[in-house]
Amino acid sequence: MTRVAIPEDSLFGLANLPYGVFSTPGTRPRVGVRVADSVVDLTVLDDVFAAPYLNPFMAQGHARWVEVRERIRDLVSGDVDDAAVHPVDAVTLHLPFEVADYVDFYASEHHASNLGRLFRPGSEPLQPNWKHLPVGYHGRAGTVVPSGTDIVRPSGQRKPPSDAAPSYGASRRLDIEAEVGFVVGTGSPLGTPVGVDDFGERVFGVVLVNDWSARDIQAWEYVPLGPFLGKSFATSISPWVVPLLALESARVATPPQDPEPLPYLREKNPWGLDLDLSISWNGQVVSRPPYREMYWSPAQMLAHLTVNGASSRTGDLFASGTVSGPDRDQRGAFIELTWGGAEPVEVNGEPRTFLEDGDEVVISATAPGPPGTRIGFGEVTGRVLPAR
Amino acid sequence: MTRVAIPEDSLFGLANLPYGVFSTPGTRPRVGVRVADSVVDLTVLDDVFAAPYLNPFMAQGHARWVEVRERIRDLVSGDVDDAAVHPVDAVTLHLPFEVADYVDFYASEHHASNLGRLFRPGSEPLQPNWKHLPVGYHGRAGTVVPSGTDIVRPSGQRKPPSDAAPSYGASRRLDIEAEVGFVVGTGSPLGTPVGVDDFGERVFGVVLVNDWSARDIQAWEYVPLGPFLGKSFATSISPWVVPLLALESARVATPPQDPEPLPYLREKNPWGLDLDLSISWNGQVVSRPPYREMYWSPAQMLAHLTVNGASSRTGDLFASGTVSGPDRDQRGAFIELTWGGAEPVEVNGEPRTFLEDGDEVVISATAPGPPGTRIGFGEVTGRVLPAR
Repeated sequence: MTRVAIPEDSLFGLANLPYGVFSTPGTRPRVGVRVADSVVDLTVLDDVFAAPYLNPFMAQGHARWVEVRERIRDLVSGDVDDAAVHPVDAVTLHLPFEVADYVDFYASEHHASNLGRLFRPGSEPLQPNWKHLPVGYHGRAGTVVPSGTDIVRPSGQRKPPSDAAPSYGASRRLDIEAEVGFVVGTGSPLGTPVGVDDFGERVFGVVLVNDWSARDIQAWEYVPLGPFLGKSFATSISPWVVPLLALESARVATPPQDPEPLPYLREKNPWGLDLDLSISWNGQVVSRPPYREMYWSPAQMLAHLTVNGASSRTGDLFASGTVSGPDRDQRGAFIELTWGGAEPVEVNGEPRTFLEDGDEVVISATAPGPPGTRIGFGEVTGRVLPAR
Repeated sequence: MTRVAIPEDSLFGLANLPYGVFSTPGTRPRVGVRVADSVVDLTVLDDVFAAPYLNPFMAQGHARWVEVRERIRDLVSGDVDDAAVHPVDAVTLHLPFEVADYVDFYASEHHASNLGRLFRPGSEPLQPNWKHLPVGYHGRAGTVVPSGTDIVRPSGQRKPPSDAAPSYGASRRLDIEAEVGFVVGTGSPLGTPVGVDDFGERVFGVVLVNDWSARDIQAWEYVPLGPFLGKSFATSISPWVVPLLALESARVATPPQDPEPLPYLREKNPWGLDLDLSISWNGQVVSRPPYREMYWSPAQMLAHLTVNGASSRTGDLFASGTVSGPDRDQRGAFIELTWGGAEPVEVNGEPRTFLEDGDEVVISATAPGPPGTRIGFGEVTGRVLPAR
């Protein structure tokens, strides 16, 4: 038996306990919990964790999430079977859940305004609908990949404004979007919207998302039906799903909304999350987007997503869209940070705009835990490989 | 033992043999084949058909599809165990496959031009990219429902041009889109595009699609990220997947493409499908859209969908977008047929524009089979229920 050492300042202490799917050499993927620098195999607790995805556990519902969280806390506070404890550096981490539908929102006013200025210069930066509803669209669930997956530079059609016709080739404007993703635990049936105050019953947890974006492909293709191949080549998520139950201390009021949204979007107690994101480019932190600045709240996104009667399923992932704050060094995409490439940032002494082959991006985040503590999210990392 | 009677003029003869998932009272859903007016239980042939979806069989690949089709032809040409044969009217038909990702294209020049005129009056009807690439977007896989599912009128935000602000309520402009959908049998890995001449190896079969559309919700929400809640409440598909192998005689040349598309979209022998669709509104045929008029071919759609390295999976569904021909009575959506509601059509003696509660829409199709014969698609039907 062994006792898991938890340093007082660990971002993965007893207040966090995020779930992931791991394997060790020669064993099958199964669910574990991260505690400090260890992964504890949860199959010692319940057979539902022998699945290679969190989905069966998430589908058991909110009461079970609460109960199991208590049991995990008891388990890892005492002596654990040696065979169930692995150093986090010694395991392989997999996609933590099977993604049902993937929706991406556009919930940061700073980001939407910046992109509006860049994509539609001379027009109003925000479209007329933006302050009335959380704008969103469906992305490709099948290309959501776990942190650490290499990103092959995508090819496709691009048409620079100076060219008369489009050409085929590797994207020259490969970018990131630092986002926060919400994982639906228990679905809702067709024809029954999820009320804006029912978020906590339905949503299991939170991940970090890198919505890789090929801006040249996107700019040419996206009118009138929205982003498609400019995004669908890969979306990376962090390996650890931080339970919503761990984020009680991170709740903050959302910024004021004007005009007041329609009743189906009005929360009794509107809340956002006080997450500090950090974006590192080849090892150098270039931006620190503050999630607390987001205009639309997580609960408003889910209520909107289902207001037309659309069902939701265990494993649905919906992401916030790029998290950008008001300051330049709070922007969550390089197209904003470098103003479309016109204002390079210095990375390790070199001026940089969009991603080059070999570049590595790491997005991480922390949030307030119980008084005096912070909890961490797993990093979402990815390295750019040359186009094939 | 029994011999399945196949009238010479049956649309479901030995040249068709579409797959579906059925159950009888007290039994579990399993795969069957439609022969004339009977469903033959395919679990008598192979255990892979005991699954409640076609996915495990589709994943076995093209060589198996060919081999099993021969075995089915032999099976139903001889005497079959009585217990394996059911009248089609006596079974319940289910969603035939588990939908992985759902993509909807916009491949009809007539439809895209009509919608452009209606949604963006005074501008060029086709966007600059339209003739260079098959425009498409991701839809909601989780709300793809089988034919016969009632469609609850969706609610959401709408803002008629005459109103200063949006309001919440039931859609007043509920519409259909008659489409043809293609089902991916064997997926392709991340980073490896599907070549435009590899369609036949990857695509298992074809279904009819009704992409229900709330035009007022769509018009307000769709800028700049595309359609979302105006579509995501329900997409109906026909219960029978017609194998691509049954459609050899239905292949026709696609209309000329000018400008010539980029090399990755150039087929050695470009082909479309000579399907005659029919749309019936409360029992009266109001339109007969010809699939042979579609500008972008099925193979071009799949090649484009994966050109950026996006993977595909067994069960991916991609639909053509509304099938519209050049004539008014060939338009595949009511917004086109009634020109935005300005030119009602007469349905059973009444002038009609958009869908009313209680309306039923049936989309069906036939295609040329071996000389002198035709093959049929299953109908896709749906009835509109009042908003909740």
